[in-house]
Formats: sequence, C-alpha cells, structure tokens
Amino acid sequence: MSLEKFFNPQSVAIVGASSQKTKVGYEILHNMIQAGFPGKLYPVNNKADVIEGLKCFPDVPSIGDVPDLVVIVVPAPVVPGIMIQCGKVGVKAVIIITAGFKEVGKDGLALEQRVLQTAIQYGIRVIGPNCLGLIAPSRHINASFGGDLPAVGGIGYLSQSGALLAAILDMANASGIGFSKLVSIGNKIDVNELDLVAALGDDDETRVIAGYLESITDGNSFVRRAELISNTKPILLIKSGGTTVGAKAATSHTGSMAGGETAYEAGFERAGIIRCNSIEQQFNYAEAFAMQPLPVGNNVVIITNAGGPGIMAADAIEREGLGFAKLTQATMDKLASFLPAAANIHNPIDVLGDALADRYEFALDAALDDPGVDIALVVLTPQAMTECSPTAEAIVRIVRKKPQKTVLACFIGAQKITEALRILRAGNIPQYFSPEDAVDVIKAMTDHVRWQNKPKRVVKLFPVNRHKVEIIIERHIRQGMREVGESDAKEILDAYGFVTPKGALATTPEQAANIADQIGYPVVLKIWSQDIIHKSDVGGVKLGLRNAQEVMDAFDLMMYRIPRKVPQAQILGVFVQQMCKGVREVILGMNRDPRFGPLMMFGMGGTMVEVMKDVSFYLAPLTSDEAKQMLMGTRTYKMLQGVRGEEGVDIEAIAEGLQRLSQLVTEFPQIQELDINPYVVGPEGTVPIAVDARMSVEKE
Amino acid sequence: MSLEKFFNPQSVAIVGASSQKTKVGYEILHNMIQAGFPGKLYPVNNKADVIEGLKCFPDVPSIGDVPDLVVIVVPAPVVPGIMIQCGKVGVKAVIIITAGFKEVGKDGLALEQRVLQTAIQYGIRVIGPNCLGLIAPSRHINASFGGDLPAVGGIGYLSQSGALLAAILDMANASGIGFSKLVSIGNKIDVNELDLVAALGDDDETRVIAGYLESITDGNSFVRRAELISNTKPILLIKSGGTTVGAKAATSHTGSMAGGETAYEAGFERAGIIRCNSIEQQFNYAEAFAMQPLPVGNNVVIITNAGGPGIMAADAIEREGLGFAKLTQATMDKLASFLPAAANIHNPIDVLGDALADRYEFALDAALDDPGVDIALVVLTPQAMTECSPTAEAIVRIVRKKPQKTVLACFIGAQKITEALRILRAGNIPQYFSPEDAVDVIKAMTDHVRWQNKPKRVVKLFPVNRHKVEIIIERHIRQGMREVGESDAKEILDAYGFVTPKGALATTPEQAANIADQIGYPVVLKIWSQDIIHKSDVGGVKLGLRNAQEVMDAFDLMMYRIPRKVPQAQILGVFVQQMCKGVREVILGMNRDPRFGPLMMFGMGGTMVEVMKDVSFYLAPLTSDEAKQMLMGTRTYKMLQGVRGEEGVDIEAIAEGLQRLSQLVTEFPQIQELDINPYVVGPEGTVPIAVDARMSVEKE
Repeated sequence: MSLEKFFNPQSVAIVGASSQKTKVGYEILHNMIQAGFPGKLYPVNNKADVIEGLKCFPDVPSIGDVPDLVVIVVPAPVVPGIMIQCGKVGVKAVIIITAGFKEVGKDGLALEQRVLQTAIQYGIRVIGPNCLGLIAPSRHINASFGGDLPAVGGIGYLSQSGALLAAILDMANASGIGFSKLVSIGNKIDVNELDLVAALGDDDETRVIAGYLESITDGNSFVRRAELISNTKPILLIKSGGTTVGAKAATSHTGSMAGGETAYEAGFERAGIIRCNSIEQQFNYAEAFAMQPLPVGNNVVIITNAGGPGIMAADAIEREGLGFAKLTQATMDKLASFLPAAANIHNPIDVLGDALADRYEFALDAALDDPGVDIALVVLTPQAMTECSPTAEAIVRIVRKKPQKTVLACFIGAQKITEALRILRAGNIPQYFSPEDAVDVIKAMTDHVRWQNKPKRVVKLFPVNRHKVEIIIERHIRQGMREVGESDAKEILDAYGFVTPKGALATTPEQAANIADQIGYPVVLKIWSQDIIHKSDVGGVKLGLRNAQEVMDAFDLMMYRIPRKVPQAQILGVFVQQMCKGVREVILGMNRDPRFGPLMMFGMGGTMVEVMKDVSFYLAPLTSDEAKQMLMGTRTYKMLQGVRGEEGVDIEAIAEGLQRLSQLVTEFPQIQELDINPYVVGPEGTVPIAVDARMSVEKE
Repeated sequence: MSLEKFFNPQSVAIVGASSQKTKVGYEILHNMIQAGFPGKLYPVNNKADVIEGLKCFPDVPSIGDVPDLVVIVVPAPVVPGIMIQCGKVGVKAVIIITAGFKEVGKDGLALEQRVLQTAIQYGIRVIGPNCLGLIAPSRHINASFGGDLPAVGGIGYLSQSGALLAAILDMANASGIGFSKLVSIGNKIDVNELDLVAALGDDDETRVIAGYLESITDGNSFVRRAELISNTKPILLIKSGGTTVGAKAATSHTGSMAGGETAYEAGFERAGIIRCNSIEQQFNYAEAFAMQPLPVGNNVVIITNAGGPGIMAADAIEREGLGFAKLTQATMDKLASFLPAAANIHNPIDVLGDALADRYEFALDAALDDPGVDIALVVLTPQAMTECSPTAEAIVRIVRKKPQKTVLACFIGAQKITEALRILRAGNIPQYFSPEDAVDVIKAMTDHVRWQNKPKRVVKLFPVNRHKVEIIIERHIRQGMREVGESDAKEILDAYGFVTPKGALATTPEQAANIADQIGYPVVLKIWSQDIIHKSDVGGVKLGLRNAQEVMDAFDLMMYRIPRKVPQAQILGVFVQQMCKGVREVILGMNRDPRFGPLMMFGMGGTMVEVMKDVSFYLAPLTSDEAKQMLMGTRTYKMLQGVRGEEGVDIEAIAEGLQRLSQLVTEFPQIQELDINPYVVGPEGTVPIAVDARMSVEKE
C-alpha cells in the first residue's frame, strides 16, 4: 500500500495547532508555513478562530473538506477520539506526534491499541505515535518539530529515534545535505520500517534509502523486500541495540555464536543492505551513493597536491583491499606534457604543492580517460598558492564532461575551503575531510557493486525422503520431546542424503565388542544419554579403540566414572561407532532466528570451533554459490584447499552438505537447531561423513 | 640537546625576508609580526633597507647581534653560504624553509650535505630543509608559512608533511584547538622525530605529543625514549606508508608476517605510543588527553536526553570491551529524587527529551559521586526544549567542582550547538559529534592507563652456554654460510636450555633403521639438504614410522622421489628423529628488524600458522609478563589452556621458551632469523621439545 498521501498531500490538517510558541502544535504549524506548503492548511483547535493568520476549525469534521493528511498533537487520552473523527470523515493518513503511549506503560499501551483498532476499522494508515513527524522538502512539507526544512536531495531517511532525527537535521542544515523525505517512525503501531523502505524504494525522488533502527519487526519480509530494492537503490542502515541483544540471545552451542546480532548481519548481507557504524559514516556513504555513479571496477587513482595525504590515501586503499589503478603509458605521457618535471605522473599523481586549478583539471581529465581507472579521488590541502574554489570548479567541470566514472573529493581543511565545499556539493561531488573516510566510502561502493553483480540466486533441490523425516519429527512433537536423539537425528540426515557412520547401541561390554567386531576396528565409543549434551566434557568419548579388549575396558570405565560426574544423568548405554578418518573436521550448523528464520553456520569442526571462532553465517535457503561463499568466508578455507604439501579436501562436497542441510531446515520449520559436528571430509571424490549431530525440534 | 633556542628565542632573523606579498619570505615575516612576537625581529635581505617597518640587514653578520634563531628562505644554492655566515657569528639554531634539496635529486642532496657539514662544524642545530617552519603560540612565534597563529593549548605537534600541517592548522583555527608547539620537520637532516619527541617530552607547556611520520630513523632509540615519556605524557602518532612497506619487506616465513609494519606496531606497543588511523582520530584523542585526567578504571556512565544515541553509546561501550558502570542504590535514589518518574535512573541515565540544563547538572553531579563510575559521557541532542549552552555551562561547573574523574561530551548537531561547543572547549571538556567517536576515545584512554600500570620491566637472564653458540656462529660467518643447518641450530638451542629430539643423520637405509632401533619407535624421517627449506612441500617428511622395515622403505622412497622434484638440491642424507608426542604444536620465532631489532613471534605451530594467521609479536628482550602477554594475544591461548575436557598445556614452559629465545637473539645480534616450529608442548610439568628449527646468521 502506497504512502502517497503522506509524501504528497494536497491538504494537511493539524489537530492541536496552537499560537503559543512553546507548544509543539505551534511549531508544526509554523514549520509547515515556513516550508511554504502550497496546499491547503487547516489548523484544528476548538479554542481559537484564527492561528497564524489561518482560519482555525474546532474539529476535523467541521473542516468540510477531507484532508489528505492529519497531524495530531493533542494529549494522548484525546487521540482515540480524534482518530474516530478522522475515520468517519474518510481521512486515510494520520501522523500522531503525541507521546504518552506504549513507552509510558500499561495505560499508554491500552490507548495505543484503541488507536490501532480505529485505524484498522477505517483503513487509516498511521505514522507514530511518539514521533517527530515527517518532512518532504521538494513538496515544501515540514510536518515536524525537528527543525528547519532541509535542502532537496536524493536521501530518504527513516528513524526510530526522533531525537536523533532532530540532530541529523541540525547537522544537515549546517552542511547543506539534501533529502527526499525524512520520517520519524516512533512507536510504529502501523507504518513500520518495512512500509517505509518499500515506499522510499518506489519513490522517484529517493536515490538512497538511509535509516536508524533499533528493531525490525518482520525480518524475513524486510530482507526479501530490501533485496529487491538494493538492486537499484542502496539501503544504508544503522541498527543499534545489537551487542546487548546479542549477548542475551546466546543460548546454546551454535546459538552462542549466532545471537540475534548475527542474524541481523546475515539478513543485511542477503538483502544487500549496507550496515553503517555511525551517523557520520552513514552520511559519508549516503552522499556518495546519491551523488555519484557506482564504479565499474575497484581501481582508484589519487590526484594530490600533498605527499603526506597522498600516502595516507594509498595506505587506506591497500588496507581496504581496493585496487591501485595502473596508468597507461599514454596517460603518463599526457600528464608529463603538462605537469612540471618534479610532479609524479604515476599513481598517486602528485601535482605538487604549488599547483593551481589548471593542473588538477588537466590531471583529472587525463586520469578519467585512462581505461585502468574506475574511481578518482582528488586530494587537496590548502597551501600558500592553492586555488581551492577554482579547483573545486575544475573538478565539477570535468565530471560534468565525463560523468561515467566515480569521482570523490578529499579537501582537508576548514576556513580556507568553505566556498570550495559549497561548489563541490552543488556539483554533486561528495567531499570528505580525511583520505581514510573517502576510501572507506569507495570500499562501501565497490562492495555494493560486487553484491549487485553476484549471480542470480537459484536454490538447488535435492531428491530426499521427506516423508521419513516428517514421521520422526511428528513423533517427537507429539511426545513433547525437544531434543532429537542421535540415532533419530542420523536417520533424518540419512533421509536428506548425508552419510553417517556405521554403529549401534550396546548395553553390555560384550555386546559392544561384538558390534565393534562387525564394524571393523578402530572404533569409537560414546556414552548414550539424553541428559549429556557435551559428551567429551565428562569423558564420554573414547577414540581409536583397536580391539575387543580395549572396547570392553573403555565401556566399563565409562560406566564406572560418568555416573560419578553427572549423577542425575540417565545413561542408556554406549554407542559403538565406526571411526571415520578424514583429512579435516568441519561443522555444519543451523540456528533458527525468530526474526530471520534459519541461519546457517559453517566453521572448523571439533573443539576448535569455539576457540578459533572461525565461523561464517548465512540465511537459508542457500544457493550453491552462497554455500561456497560461506566456506570462503573462513580462514579454515585455505586449510581445506590444502597447505604445504598436505592434501586438500572436497570443497564441493562440503558446499553440497550445507545446501542439503539448508533444504532440510527450510522444509522443516520445526527444526530449531541442528549441528553436524564433526562433519569429516576427505580428498576430492570421498564422501563426507556426518559423525555426530545434535538437533532440536519444536511445534511450529 | 635542548631545542630551547627554537622554542623560546629572544631574537629571530629571517634571511630572505621580503616585502612582496606572493613570497614565502614575506609571509613568514608577516606571520611573525601578526603573532605579536615580543623579541627582536631582524629581516635580512641585501636588496632592501626597511621591510614592513623593520630595519633590514644585508646579511647575518651585519645585524651586530647573534640572533637566537635564524629562519632561512633564500633559494637552495645560496643556503650553504648563509649557513657558514651563521656559524661564524655563533648562531646555534636554524630553520631552513627552502625546498630544492634531497627531494629533487643528486644536486640537491649534495647541497644538503654541505649544509649538514657546516652545521656539524659550528654546532648549529637545523630544522628542515624543505619544511613549513615552526609555531609556538604561547611565545607568539609563527615562523612558518602555514597559516594564522592557533590558540594556546597543550598539544605539541610534529609533522613530516608540511602540507598536512597547513591543513591541520586550518582545521584547528576553525574549531579552536590549541597547541604548545607545531613543528614541520621536512627532510630532517639534523633535528628529527627523536629530538622533537624528546624536547616536547621535556616541554612544560606540552601535555600531549602528537605527530605525523612517514619514517623513523632510529627505531630502537626512539622506542626507548618514547617509553620513558609515555609514562607521563601520551604520544599519539600517525605512521603512514605502512602497508606498501610491509608488502615489500615480506621475505621469509616469519618475515612474511613480520614485515616492517609489524615491527612498527611492536615498537609502538612497547613504547606505549598510541597509534592513530587518521587525523580526525588523532585530534579526538589529543583533545581528551590534553583536557581531561586519565580514568582510574574503565567503567562508563552515560547521561543522555535521547534514547537512540544512548543505545548507540552503550553498544559502542560493549563492542570496545569497556565497563558499563553499575550505579549504587544510593545514586539511583538520589537521581529518582530529582528526575521525573519516566526518566531512566539506571545507566544509561535518560534525563528525557524535555530535559533542561538542571537535570543534566544534577545527574552528572550524582553520577560522579558514585564509586562505580570512572568516566562520564554526557550525550545531548538539540530537541525542542533543550538548553544547549546552559547544559554545557552546567557540565563545566560540575567538572570544575569534581575534577578527578574523566568527563567527555557528545553533543550531536551543528548550528544549534555552536555556542555550547565553545563553552565546552573553554571549560576543558572534550566534545565529539558521535557516540562512537567518544567511546573510541575512552577506549584509547583506558588502554593507555593499562599500559602505564603494567608491571615494571624485569628481563630474566637464564644461565646458558654462550661460548658454545659463539663458536658455531663465528664458524658460519667465517665460512660465509648464512643458513645454519639443523644440527648446528639444535646445538645452539641446546646451549640455551632448549630440549631437542634425539636423532642422527643416516646415509643408507640400514643406517637409518639402526638409528631408529636405538632411539625407539615411532620415528620421523626428514630429508637432509641445505637446499630444501620447506621439507614437507617435497614429500621430505615422513611421520610415525613403526619399525625398521617402514624406516627403510621411507628412506628409499625419499631418495627416489625427491631428486626428481628438486633436481638441483644437494641431498646429504636423511635425518632419523624421535617422534615427539605432545598435546599441541606451537611456533616460537624471531625476525630481526633493521630499525627495531629482534621481533619475537608466537603462534599456533605446524602448517596452521600460515593459514590461521593467529600470531602475536613483541620486541625482544621479553619479560616474563610480556612473554605471557604474547601467548594471551592469540586465539590459540584458549586451546593451550585446554578446552572441552582436553588437557591444557604448560603455559609457563612456553613463556620460558620465548624468554630463552629472546635472550639468545639479544645476546647474538648476528642471528637474523630463527623459527622453532614445531615447539611441541605437553601438560603441566612436561618439558617442551624444539622439534625443528630454522636459523640464519649474518656478520653484525
């Protein structure tokens, strides 16, 4: 559903408009007038006839017109009544500025629910309550108490913090940053981040979507919508409250590394959302994305009048893994024809401290013609002879002539470059005060290009025995069992094409020896108890038993020792298992996130996983490419490829394991957690073995 | 030697002073006059009688007085003659602004050397050439062409880039940052970074030393001096040119991870130098260190009028591993007595969006009294009712009353907070525009406190057989052999108390089997050749041979296969070695850095070291504490302690190994590189074994 009536209303009523300057109701009316709103403006207040020269109405029905948008600033207890009035006359869009709802406790929550019911009943879309309002500069709308109307620009901003929006507005108005829309979402009883990102995605004025969020209501839908939008419009989000939430969400094994925060990361990665660490970084990115074309490649040329900052930029480029453009001989010859002999005609191009604007203009022009250059970073320090403003004009001129490549400026200074900054902004050249910030922006742009260029997502479906899994899971849920025992877990894995080691349960030492004889030595013994999750912690795993005697000894030792360590555990016996020898042990895991769904994990296996924390995450369902990306996202990957004469392992086979697991947990939303650890993998052509598995299920 | 004549001259001559406004000689004289220099000012120029109302002298001798400081701005070829004049009249301090020396090539270098010779002959200290000059605001000295005189403050700045200094000056003058001294060091033919850091260390006006460097001439002396200074004055450095240098320095095994950049890191760590990634970060840090006391602990309280930025600050605190102050009940009661009911009296203290200055004043006052609070961060966004300037005044008032604890401000905005920022700066409250920046500063302060509080460095000396090592190394050097063979390397290690595995060289399969019989099975076979450095790459290592037949088979296979793989290698035989079974394999290494001396390395051993890059570095000689810190600096450490029921290893024994290695390489500067890999370690009480070692030596 469109938010057109919010973004482009022809008539706006302000319920609670006031002529008292200290009141929010005054400020909003005043801001609308100051913004030069060209449509009809109806102050509503039953204690006044005229406010700020405008006819005032006692209530919404008496306006006689149905306003496209109603802004409510009356005290919270009165709001539900106003909502009913709005509904009855046919208003379809309401912004509730008023605070005193959910955020103040139970009574407020009850009020909020009454508001929501009315909204649903009459089909009214509501922004707020407890918000700062909405601003649309190009439409001359400032239905907020956040500050003056900012410049028109390509950034659409949504914020879950009104106070932060006010601060952003103050900073933007000082530096001249322009916006398409700014929306404070407050308690988001109706219009939420998903609606707004979708609306800004459809909004022609918005070139970049940016926002500050503390929570995302429906992670899955948000990710899916954002993924579509990111292909044409970058989405830049600050998501705060992450670390504490992450710590609280830490529950189990995989869980402890895959808290809510990891799910947000994985969701953002899937959707191509660019996560920002601070407001500064967000606006650094937003300006570049709004002003400049995305680069085709990642090769940067630096043009500078100062060695130091040139080196700093070069350092940052190397640190961020970007490319350092290698200029062609033709370009260097051209540069040499104009620049003084002492200038550096290699990248970084040093036009020298006494450079006037003409050297910059010539060098940038030549560099942009070079086929090896994707991005140009123009660095300037205001030295004795430097022509700051003419240089800015020269850059704008060249970029207008050659708009295909990405050009950023890094003018380092303050007073001496004030006018130059204005020229750069007006000419759509993003400007940064430090080489590091500029290069950070370039990195974000090239990363986003890589995301956009990734192959189309095609999820492979393997032929599996789904029915068998259904039966096992249903039995567990029927019997209220959360943990799936090892043998059931292996049957499930088996049904999805995993190979599990041979083995059987033994309740006596002799039986254990018999089973071992049939399997063939060496074997592994594992204590069998639903109450013991981490078997090796209690001495419940014995590897490499080579004959019947060793098996019987190990059996008896476990039976003697373990009950002393964990007296409360009910021990069902000992599992005798084929010992799998592969080259490496890895872990394949899944943890279901309440907001984003199944979160897949890959990492080094065995006890190493917790120590090295060398794991990667991705949202299911996985494509083959994504599964491989997960592997490559770890340091373990190099080892899997084989190092120093050691044999590599079958990478494709691991990737297939991840995809099969992804299919299993996607087809069975009842599976809450699933770790295959270790997943023993061997050289190319060998079939990996799922040696051990932990799984838990829950009713959907 | 003191730089007093530079920092506090009573008389200054400017050779090359000019009345032409486009000339540097004009700008420097003008800047000195503008700065209100109270001493004697002598323009020197043989083409004028009076410049800017001052009597002008044709040359230095004709001044008739010996100026404390001479600033030279004449063209490069004339400079050597001026230097001789200066020397003859007894001038002791000269700044050479003029460019056109080393940086333009051979002729310039020759000129520079003549200047240096004269300086040495007459005992003149020289800053420059090719520099921007020197500024000392409190002395009203602006002997530079960088810009206007900045405010007086506690930051002493040195820069190897003149252009950058000009940019810094422009930014500082816009924001009001104050300095004690600013020095451009140019080509640093005499006065270098070491002299300046030492002089600023002794300078009472300087509370914080900051600088931009591209190289450090004498790393070792610099580190030793900086270490002393850092105990009382923080040193904040940007060191650029790192990444490319690092890549070039990559040579050998340890070397590839311990390039020049790593040595700089280790040197800075030892010296307590705080490394900054950008100019912004450097000034963020510098202001806090100059204005506020260092915190006693790392527990932060946040006081905010906005939820969003409060959460962002809390996130950053958690992310950086800082403490979140837990307020006492008494503090919370006190807060509750004044703040409205809806306010949050827990940390982060939320004084609410409608807070006036009084709530901030009360909350900060109460929070600073809380024994659990070490640092207070006051966050403000300019909302409708916010009193920005009165709040700034309130903070300054409270901090004056309670100056023991660290207080920082984070006012987020621009136009609405302009006056507040001025008040905060005048009141010595550092201010940041984002919570993340403020918390980054807090982290740097607490890290520095931890560095200052580390135990006194006492290097333990083990009794060793130094003479034996001397003989082996001298023989190698005499014979021009760089690589030390395995058996010699082991004798050296043995002399320094390392235990090496039993073993001997065999040249026939039968001999190999005999040796193995004596050592006891299992054994390891290793190909023996000076030409093969990475033995396992060519199949030159065979582990776990269990009997004589297996030994003979392995011997013959190596002799058959390896010459086909590396035909050029001269093979001396096969080394038969005891197979060491420990719990873990680690690597102890050393790579000698040309600037900083022996750089110690610790990491996970075997082939893992290169894949996991889980290594730590420190400069030798190591104290016991530093050796343990090196272990703790890796993720491997957790594994060494034992995980999931697996036994831990003897941590102290590894630390001792590092210290013994540190002693060896400190006592023998001829050793260029030394890796013990693997160093096999077992449970507490077991003696680690240095299984394999690579070592190279060079004449000192």
